[in-house]
Amino acid sequence: VTRTNLTIDSDRLWATLMETAEIGGTPKGGINRLTLTEEDRRVRDWFAQTVREAGLELGIDQMGTMYATRPGRDPSRKPIAMGSHLDTQPTGGKFDGVLGVLAGLEVLRTLNGAGIETEAPITLVNWTNEEGARFAPGMVASGVYAGEVDQAWAMERQDRDGVRFGDALDAIGYRGTEPVGERRFGAMVELHIEQGPILELEGKTIGVVTAAKGSIWADCRVLGRESHAGSTPMNVRRDALMAFAEFALASETVAPQNGPDGVATIGVVEALPASRNTIPGEVRFTLDYRHPDAEALDRMTRGIDEAASAIGSARRVDIQIERIWNKPPIAFDEQVCRAVETSAAELGLSHRTITSGAGHDAVLTASVVPTAMIFVPCKDGISHNEAESATKEDCAAGANVLLRTVLHLAG
Amino acid sequence: VTRTNLTIDSDRLWATLMETAEIGGTPKGGINRLTLTEEDRRVRDWFAQTVREAGLELGIDQMGTMYATRPGRDPSRKPIAMGSHLDTQPTGGKFDGVLGVLAGLEVLRTLNGAGIETEAPITLVNWTNEEGARFAPGMVASGVYAGEVDQAWAMERQDRDGVRFGDALDAIGYRGTEPVGERRFGAMVELHIEQGPILELEGKTIGVVTAAKGSIWADCRVLGRESHAGSTPMNVRRDALMAFAEFALASETVAPQNGPDGVATIGVVEALPASRNTIPGEVRFTLDYRHPDAEALDRMTRGIDEAASAIGSARRVDIQIERIWNKPPIAFDEQVCRAVETSAAELGLSHRTITSGAGHDAVLTASVVPTAMIFVPCKDGISHNEAESATKEDCAAGANVLLRTVLHLAG
Repeated sequence: VTRTNLTIDSDRLWATLMETAEIGGTPKGGINRLTLTEEDRRVRDWFAQTVREAGLELGIDQMGTMYATRPGRDPSRKPIAMGSHLDTQPTGGKFDGVLGVLAGLEVLRTLNGAGIETEAPITLVNWTNEEGARFAPGMVASGVYAGEVDQAWAMERQDRDGVRFGDALDAIGYRGTEPVGERRFGAMVELHIEQGPILELEGKTIGVVTAAKGSIWADCRVLGRESHAGSTPMNVRRDALMAFAEFALASETVAPQNGPDGVATIGVVEALPASRNTIPGEVRFTLDYRHPDAEALDRMTRGIDEAASAIGSARRVDIQIERIWNKPPIAFDEQVCRAVETSAAELGLSHRTITSGAGHDAVLTASVVPTAMIFVPCKDGISHNEAESATKEDCAAGANVLLRTVLHLAG
Repeated sequence: VTRTNLTIDSDRLWATLMETAEIGGTPKGGINRLTLTEEDRRVRDWFAQTVREAGLELGIDQMGTMYATRPGRDPSRKPIAMGSHLDTQPTGGKFDGVLGVLAGLEVLRTLNGAGIETEAPITLVNWTNEEGARFAPGMVASGVYAGEVDQAWAMERQDRDGVRFGDALDAIGYRGTEPVGERRFGAMVELHIEQGPILELEGKTIGVVTAAKGSIWADCRVLGRESHAGSTPMNVRRDALMAFAEFALASETVAPQNGPDGVATIGVVEALPASRNTIPGEVRFTLDYRHPDAEALDRMTRGIDEAASAIGSARRVDIQIERIWNKPPIAFDEQVCRAVETSAAELGLSHRTITSGAGHDAVLTASVVPTAMIFVPCKDGISHNEAESATKEDCAAGANVLLRTVLHLAG
């Protein structure tokens, strides 16, 4: 076995995925392993013991993020990081986050087994609270790591029962002493299921993730005039709901006008006064739109505002769009992306470039570490769901690309 | 004063409207006089005393409907009825229903004052529970009168506190002994505010109501596929909300395709799972559509079903329309309508034919008594609202048309 024909052990990877899925496992085959709960403690204990057994050095930072390092020949080189998260949604699946950590473990076990040394050290990371399901917001530990979230503020976040993040960290014994962000990496690679349908639909095994979409969230209102459903002719109505409907279709049109990566979604809608025989005088709704390109996202903003203004004028209603959240797009590191692409090609795996529509720890680290991601398909694009599913073959393919990418980067 | 130049006393009518508006009067200038409450008892007591003082004979039927009769020269002729209701919505206005009863009172006072005899007797009716706001459904007493609602069933209706209709009737002392529907009329005329904007917009004083719209109520669902707002491309979505939006606009188009009297309204809408960053997999909504012509209403039904089917196919979602209520249109009596139109013309009042989009007691009596309605404008078409407003002049004009119509019919 040499560096060029080295592959991970797909049976061992799968067994590890299935074994740890028991920690917080649900009857429907998913995982309920909210961050900093007893279940999280158990999987962290398993992780700590396993990496020590693999001869790795474990460090824990003040946010509870775990770093398991395999030394390199050149200790002056910054480590190459692989990682994701072991926490899940309350009705989460077996792969979201978990695959990235356990495939990283499999990579290190494979290197150990083959006795291969790298120039740079390699560090496997388990980021704390990626999901944000118990303590909002998510990606908080990688956020503090990247300097985008204030650590003291993060410590004060509370769950629904009023428990503070810092206290929960203490309660499971995972508040480390290492200052967050002190440890810098030469690169960071995160393997993850796509959480979307593109790879599966196109029959591709590997997504080379070149960018993460920027997203804008808005709270919107249409103000029209409430009136009687039976006695108000269509041509004199100022129906807030019909204006909403026209605006919704306009938002659906604006997205693809800016390329296939633009998306726009209305997830929540309410008409008032919510009476069957009263024309709605007000509609409240949310709008979420995303694009991996900042200029295209700006064009979407203009297109949406123009549609709101034109529809509002034509229908004599007021369409108000209050933007409450704006996350700019980020481009992943070209060199790390190229390492992923080269690795997939060397392995003969079908692949395409793709953008991430969801948030990931890698999206945060990208601002301070050269970062990229590897996507593998998941069934029907379903995630954050106990029905989340990925094949053993695709998980192994992703882990092999991760192995080869890390070897390219670590030398 | 003769029959041909006789007019009502507009000051007296207005004073009576304002005086009785104190019974259940609200700080915002409306009336809260739910059926069979203490406030309803007080206005009924006032009505009973006032009609007796006017020399009228009062009868009360088993549904609590009050009939005040002025004798005619020919007791063999069936009485000509005028009437509406004195109950209101919880945040009702001063004119809805009340105008029809008090204008009828003013007509009888005017005939008394001028000493004019009619051939047929004239009966002023205060129908019980037109609004249906306390005991659903509304128009229940006129419904029993017309044989469309079962009297024993009506007696068992309960309000939110579990109080039965029959017990509430007993509690205020207005369960009469007269069998409901025994008293038959030669004609029935109801004066009412339009509760829509047409007369005001066209600058017309009198609406000659020739028909009442039939209405169909449906509970509808769109079933699509829930997926991630960030990672699901627009072209693979099965977004239940966007399909809803397209259907809503289609329903808005179907209505005017069937003439200016067709209306369609979506009053209630809910997207599921109601998460800002999840594409809705389901949308639930109501649909209310109406038309005064039965064939046109059928065409609307077909147009709506075709739109649902076409949009469902194109978007790979299922649009389900469950019709839960179907009230056929009714045409008012041609001869009574002609009497109204002739009266408005004789008085030199601007007028137009119009259809009623809301339900009224007259819509129910129309199936057993030759019936028509007179509309007068109300400000901005607003009704079922404390801001409901009609001018003294328009109320007087309506009452004068009522007077003249009744004289035409009663001879």
